[in-house]
Amino acid sequence: MKSMVFEEFLSTPEIQAVFGEASIVQAMMDFEAALARAAAREGLIPQSAAVAIAGVCRAELYDLSSLVQASGRAGSLAIPMVKKLTETVALFDPQAASYVHRGSTSQDVIDTAMALVTRRALALLERDLLRLCDGLLNLAETQGRHPMLGRTLMQPALVTSVGFKLAGWVAPLLRCAHSLRLAADDALMLQLGGAIGTLAVMGDGADAVCRHVAQDLALGLPDLPWHTQRDRWIRLGAEVGVLCGALGKIANDVSLLAQAEVGEMLEPSVSGRGGSTAMPHKRNPVACLVALAAAQRTPFRVGALLGCMLQEHERGLGNNQAELAEWVGLFTSAHGAVSALAEAAAGLQIFPERMRANIDAVKGLVFTEGLYMLVSPAVGKAEAQRWVEQLSHQVLEQDRQLLDVAREALAADPKLQAAVTHEQLQALFDPDLVAAHAQSRVRVPLQHLREQWQALSATPHFVPANERA
Amino acid sequence: MKSMVFEEFLSTPEIQAVFGEASIVQAMMDFEAALARAAAREGLIPQSAAVAIAGVCRAELYDLSSLVQASGRAGSLAIPMVKKLTETVALFDPQAASYVHRGSTSQDVIDTAMALVTRRALALLERDLLRLCDGLLNLAETQGRHPMLGRTLMQPALVTSVGFKLAGWVAPLLRCAHSLRLAADDALMLQLGGAIGTLAVMGDGADAVCRHVAQDLALGLPDLPWHTQRDRWIRLGAEVGVLCGALGKIANDVSLLAQAEVGEMLEPSVSGRGGSTAMPHKRNPVACLVALAAAQRTPFRVGALLGCMLQEHERGLGNNQAELAEWVGLFTSAHGAVSALAEAAAGLQIFPERMRANIDAVKGLVFTEGLYMLVSPAVGKAEAQRWVEQLSHQVLEQDRQLLDVAREALAADPKLQAAVTHEQLQALFDPDLVAAHAQSRVRVPLQHLREQWQALSATPHFVPANERA
Amino acid sequence: MKSMVFEEFLSTPEIQAVFGEASIVQAMMDFEAALARAAAREGLIPQSAAVAIAGVCRAELYDLSSLVQASGRAGSLAIPMVKKLTETVALFDPQAASYVHRGSTSQDVIDTAMALVTRRALALLERDLLRLCDGLLNLAETQGRHPMLGRTLMQPALVTSVGFKLAGWVAPLLRCAHSLRLAADDALMLQLGGAIGTLAVMGDGADAVCRHVAQDLALGLPDLPWHTQRDRWIRLGAEVGVLCGALGKIANDVSLLAQAEVGEMLEPSVSGRGGSTAMPHKRNPVACLVALAAAQRTPFRVGALLGCMLQEHERGLGNNQAELAEWVGLFTSAHGAVSALAEAAAGLQIFPERMRANIDAVKGLVFTEGLYMLVSPAVGKAEAQRWVEQLSHQVLEQDRQLLDVAREALAADPKLQAAVTHEQLQALFDPDLVAAHAQSRVRVPLQHLREQWQALSATPHFVPANERA
Amino acid sequence: MKSMVFEEFLSTPEIQAVFGEASIVQAMMDFEAALARAAAREGLIPQSAAVAIAGVCRAELYDLSSLVQASGRAGSLAIPMVKKLTETVALFDPQAASYVHRGSTSQDVIDTAMALVTRRALALLERDLLRLCDGLLNLAETQGRHPMLGRTLMQPALVTSVGFKLAGWVAPLLRCAHSLRLAADDALMLQLGGAIGTLAVMGDGADAVCRHVAQDLALGLPDLPWHTQRDRWIRLGAEVGVLCGALGKIANDVSLLAQAEVGEMLEPSVSGRGGSTAMPHKRNPVACLVALAAAQRTPFRVGALLGCMLQEHERGLGNNQAELAEWVGLFTSAHGAVSALAEAAAGLQIFPERMRANIDAVKGLVFTEGLYMLVSPAVGKAEAQRWVEQLSHQVLEQDRQLLDVAREALAADPKLQAAVTHEQLQALFDPDLVAAHAQSRVRVPLQHLREQWQALSATPHFVPANERA
Repeated sequence: MKSMVFEEFLSTPEIQAVFGEASIVQAMMDFEAALARAAAREGLIPQSAAVAIAGVCRAELYDLSSLVQASGRAGSLAIPMVKKLTETVALFDPQAASYVHRGSTSQDVIDTAMALVTRRALALLERDLLRLCDGLLNLAETQGRHPMLGRTLMQPALVTSVGFKLAGWVAPLLRCAHSLRLAADDALMLQLGGAIGTLAVMGDGADAVCRHVAQDLALGLPDLPWHTQRDRWIRLGAEVGVLCGALGKIANDVSLLAQAEVGEMLEPSVSGRGGSTAMPHKRNPVACLVALAAAQRTPFRVGALLGCMLQEHERGLGNNQAELAEWVGLFTSAHGAVSALAEAAAGLQIFPERMRANIDAVKGLVFTEGLYMLVSPAVGKAEAQRWVEQLSHQVLEQDRQLLDVAREALAADPKLQAAVTHEQLQALFDPDLVAAHAQSRVRVPLQHLREQWQALSATPHFVPANERA
Repeated sequence: MKSMVFEEFLSTPEIQAVFGEASIVQAMMDFEAALARAAAREGLIPQSAAVAIAGVCRAELYDLSSLVQASGRAGSLAIPMVKKLTETVALFDPQAASYVHRGSTSQDVIDTAMALVTRRALALLERDLLRLCDGLLNLAETQGRHPMLGRTLMQPALVTSVGFKLAGWVAPLLRCAHSLRLAADDALMLQLGGAIGTLAVMGDGADAVCRHVAQDLALGLPDLPWHTQRDRWIRLGAEVGVLCGALGKIANDVSLLAQAEVGEMLEPSVSGRGGSTAMPHKRNPVACLVALAAAQRTPFRVGALLGCMLQEHERGLGNNQAELAEWVGLFTSAHGAVSALAEAAAGLQIFPERMRANIDAVKGLVFTEGLYMLVSPAVGKAEAQRWVEQLSHQVLEQDRQLLDVAREALAADPKLQAAVTHEQLQALFDPDLVAAHAQSRVRVPLQHLREQWQALSATPHFVPANERA
Repeated sequence: MKSMVFEEFLSTPEIQAVFGEASIVQAMMDFEAALARAAAREGLIPQSAAVAIAGVCRAELYDLSSLVQASGRAGSLAIPMVKKLTETVALFDPQAASYVHRGSTSQDVIDTAMALVTRRALALLERDLLRLCDGLLNLAETQGRHPMLGRTLMQPALVTSVGFKLAGWVAPLLRCAHSLRLAADDALMLQLGGAIGTLAVMGDGADAVCRHVAQDLALGLPDLPWHTQRDRWIRLGAEVGVLCGALGKIANDVSLLAQAEVGEMLEPSVSGRGGSTAMPHKRNPVACLVALAAAQRTPFRVGALLGCMLQEHERGLGNNQAELAEWVGLFTSAHGAVSALAEAAAGLQIFPERMRANIDAVKGLVFTEGLYMLVSPAVGKAEAQRWVEQLSHQVLEQDRQLLDVAREALAADPKLQAAVTHEQLQALFDPDLVAAHAQSRVRVPLQHLREQWQALSATPHFVPANERA
Repeated sequence: MKSMVFEEFLSTPEIQAVFGEASIVQAMMDFEAALARAAAREGLIPQSAAVAIAGVCRAELYDLSSLVQASGRAGSLAIPMVKKLTETVALFDPQAASYVHRGSTSQDVIDTAMALVTRRALALLERDLLRLCDGLLNLAETQGRHPMLGRTLMQPALVTSVGFKLAGWVAPLLRCAHSLRLAADDALMLQLGGAIGTLAVMGDGADAVCRHVAQDLALGLPDLPWHTQRDRWIRLGAEVGVLCGALGKIANDVSLLAQAEVGEMLEPSVSGRGGSTAMPHKRNPVACLVALAAAQRTPFRVGALLGCMLQEHERGLGNNQAELAEWVGLFTSAHGAVSALAEAAAGLQIFPERMRANIDAVKGLVFTEGLYMLVSPAVGKAEAQRWVEQLSHQVLEQDRQLLDVAREALAADPKLQAAVTHEQLQALFDPDLVAAHAQSRVRVPLQHLREQWQALSATPHFVPANERA
């Protein structure tokens, strides 16, 4: 329990608690309690045994670190947990001890517990994802109109609007929020199959027991156990990976825009964050750092999870255990990222005057496409291309604005002058007009995004059974 | 175009053709033709230009390999394609040449083309996936009753039924077939945004043009371009990765069951397949080989695709190009796998007598759980556990069947004898009864799977526009 | 510090301690102490300051968990550590506090600390790797002569010897041990460059300071800092990945040989390991489980480390931090694997009679190649191939041994009979003779391996400075 | 053979030819010819047979595409190749046909052929790697003195020199060149073991045959076959992955420096490269694009190769085939990257005046560390830090240079004024002096790098046997 020094600042205390030993052991015990109650309800074990068992299914009664340590030798956390639970039940009701974990297998309790704690993890992810979207939508709604450079292949391309840029960031996040719900609805299932999935020792009561346990824990009830059929589970993991990719794209853009030479955006200055031991004045983009680290790592987590799908026969050797560990790593990274960006988005600074200056510095060259399209009907595509290229070279050689160079060139060429009005030319080179066009295209989408955000915010999805109304 | 020697037998000619140069260039030209028609319909270009452009948008008119070669220098296939197309249009209608590709950008044509050819790829995947499911369901329906060992952590665990095993293989595949449709509905979209996504040069006609092009190509119409918002696209890729995991799990199981020492299943013997230059008698599981190779590789493809999501600003540098190449690799591997397994499943041999022999060879030890649960109410969990362990040691030391050893032990212990009837004991150790229980649990799920299969088979999903009724 | 529940049994307490907070913070302080001493020696700071600083560079003086927690906000463990250290120095010698960490940067202290703790990790890896090799060599030396099936593509192929098999396992491990030393010699270097690597504030003393610190910590002295030049470091990580692959191959083979139906090898039975909550009799291959989990995960760790190499400019954003976390994960997995297998190898059980039985069960078909080569000079390659195939079919149809079928066939064909003597035929089908040939080929290599093992064992390589004679 | 459209511009025709069918089949036949000659020399086959076999071991005699196609059914390219070769030998010398491929197995010929073509691939990699180093060293030698910003966490940090920056790029590349030679010396070995590695059918001549074949092909001679002991091979692959990481780091830096807002470096303008269909004026960093795509993909290739190491028993199922395909992908990506960067480096443009302007734009804030260290002896660390922070705020609020602000502040504080001379202050803020310090630290390393480059250039390492003097 000591090797996580470098995970600390790439994750959050909240998500670490969700996947911490207390949380997982409690979830395992929730399963055992629910199983006992269900078995009693179906007459498979005495009611008194269920009461005795459920009564001690409280993680705080146990020495968790010794349980985790014992799991090292046993190869599974379930084995020492069931052992301790049985011993504890026996202290109060020796008879009942025989009914602990009855009909179930290690993987049943661990997979079900993972479904339970993963629901809590998803609640955290969703909460902060919506917070992040809110922050970005606020910016889009208040500062969207400002013109800024669009950039392709790391070079200035054309002028867009802040709102257009932000819509491109938010839309994938809201799609991810939606997809996470769908994937979780499929993946957060009861696991209950006994040794090899057939629930051999439960006889005819098997179906009813499964139904009760699933209902008790508010988990989905699968047709069949999924010990080595991990598709729904891994699909949920992949979904978290896609989210991290979408977060990483934003972090990457922000860190590029926050470069001193670009200066168009800046993470909020938070005391104690982003400092440097050697350079006390620095203001490092630490939220981006966390999200980029996650985006760097999570593709490999998802890859590992997919690789773990080849679980042999009715329980995998090694891949099953690897999946558990990679799963935790995936979610803790993801929450680190979304939480850091949510905090940053709330105070993200935007510098419209730098945006404008960066546009001006390109000397109008980002408007060549429009110019080219304006004249090409008059002179043909090839001729127009040559003409624009020639003007572009002039701009670079003479260090002038393309608009001026173009005006001169048009004045010198009657055919072209006839094709292009002064107003057309002016409009072509006006960042505000170009940004306004971009804004006009994104107005409806931004409204939809806000509506989706409201709909998602109004219907919290990942509420554990015991916290539901 | 020469470095695919070792992909050949891990893929199929069909899927290679789908992602081959002719197919991709044609899809690019389908986009250009649709764009020209749409622009003409909105009055942005002359109707005659649209006719001239669409008329030469036929890949067979062009020297494809020189196009591909030229893409090497240009950094994109779209650049030489648009150039050649423009030249060709100019041969017939010099005016019209000005309107080729108008308002669009390289990534528009490439992404849209990829959506079009990916739909064809998905049609192949789905066809063979359903074929595979049919083969496995047939087996489950005809041979499902046979008892076979369930195995956990690579050791015999309990007895299950062939039907239970097969249901576990099929269910994920049908879920994948379903999920692929959903993911594709989101991902197979038009890409049309111009230089930086704002469709700057199309003015007010932009929306209508997009709508027409999407309809013409029977693709989804996204709210906004997705040049660097790849979530829906990568989600589809991840889905293919999940499918490969599910296929790999089956291939892994089959190859384990096909080991000479296990001998419970065997790929069909196909002339010319699975031979060995050094060992002419060998019958290698070549379909498993292909599926396992795919399952080995595709997690890394999906990981790479997720890693490529951090595309900078309005067009990524390197990651965009990497994504294209990885995408093709993912789908060609996947189709190799599903097609190989579909062929194998149609003739998969099952050997019930070897299954029975393997059960017998474990000397009843796989029934200890039942025995333990039978006696534990009478003597308590701990005592029952000790008793069963003792019998197990006896079995191993004396090389006898557990049933015989248990009978003796019960006879010697009146308390236990009272707790367990002869019939109970007999039933516990009867593979047919245990398999029958497993079959009873899987009967309804198997019916559902067959119904899902029928529903999917009846509604082909990935039909290109030009092949629809 | 709570999310490692599922790492516990895939790792070891020893390696977790090496990468635990106490160990890392101490290593960081070892760097600070060495830096202060070196600076004093060069007259850059007062001697008394060096004494004051070095005097409190003891991790046990600090509240480690609050340091780690503070790193979460700071984005680096170095920042709170330097702060606390400075405060502590100031308690004793306010003047000296100005000289703490002087000229250095966060990454200097973290990278150097990682080199120091990684050396300890390598010492553990090497110790257990050599233990594992010893166990396997012992087996090869005592049980090597037994014939066993060689298997290709998961099917019986030919007969080999236990010794040949084991040599194939050990040789890569000893090569890894050797390569780890070489890679570590390059990678375990001092990091000392100050803010951007130029040691700007140290003036002319820079070289001498670096030399002293490196010598003090017994680390390599690089030409230049390697803040964002990670090749040597990642090469060492890749080497650990290769080791895990070699371990995984062994674990995979053992788990296949340990299948009940094969039964040729078995992990030693260790009380409390490899049990099952549902099947008390089971003896699961838990060492293989741990090694296979590592082999499943570490390729993704190495991939992630390679992906992290693109560190921007003079210090990376996110990738640097991701590398740290992945590094720890790689080494903890690797030690879990090597330690588990070393323990298993010491008591690995080999069952020569099952090996023989498995050979016999293939009815001589694994000797077809020899038979074919024996007769092909007489009748030609094609004819020989046909003849052997025909006999093989007879074997399968009539359930007889190939030797008997071949004897009959030879007797019926004078031409063939002339080509093959009775003794030749007999020899061809004698597992002991075939195994003896395999053993003869591996005799010298096994001697070399033992010698390499002795040479490596005699020269412990990864001894920290303070433990050297 | 048709699905490589998007690999084309991420690779090179040269490396594609190396791994093309003609090259691989020829290498396979080189193996067969060498094997026949060696067997004849040892008297295992008639001399005339060796002559007959070697005589038709010329790839141009065969229909390669039908061979590759046939490999699809056979599951291995070796099977149809050996078949065709045998048939062709039989046309000339029916007797000799029996001796084709004798004693060998498919994997022998494929692995050996891969070693042969990989040597050619390494020759290409090394050639262009040295070309790249030369280009960068030239720049360092001619333009090294210019001051430029060092940047950490994507923010300006301190001033360094162009030479220091370039040394940091070149050093890893030359280390990679060196390591590739070492790794290749281990990995480029003969594979010759027959069916399961024991060379069962070669009898006592086995050793000699191996020795001859290895010598004939100028490959290493391993102690034992390495059919499923892939460590040396994969280590070479990992080395290529490390190279791609080092290349990616450079490409990433260049693309960041080439941003219009930074403008410190630019790829050479090459006609036809880096254009845009929508923005004719653009100059995209296409060499960076190719290298970044490789750096994005190759970590997953190396991961896949490591994952493929778990090859079962004496020949793997699926993983062996996956390794072959991933290997090719790794090398073709790598050569794309190194070749693109080598071309770019030869004409890389450096803009010292923009470097200077970017330094000036930070208003001296990058010199705070020096200022802080200058005054901290006089006033203590904490006080100095406060003072510098206060000045920094003044700089930002008043938009002045730190030097001016600091001068004023010193003038107002007699204690500080006494501690800092005018010259010291001036020197601290002089980019040329700071760069000169950086240059002084890198002078010797740069000389060493040039010497290493000369040594490597003078001794071409990867020369095929038939091209040696």
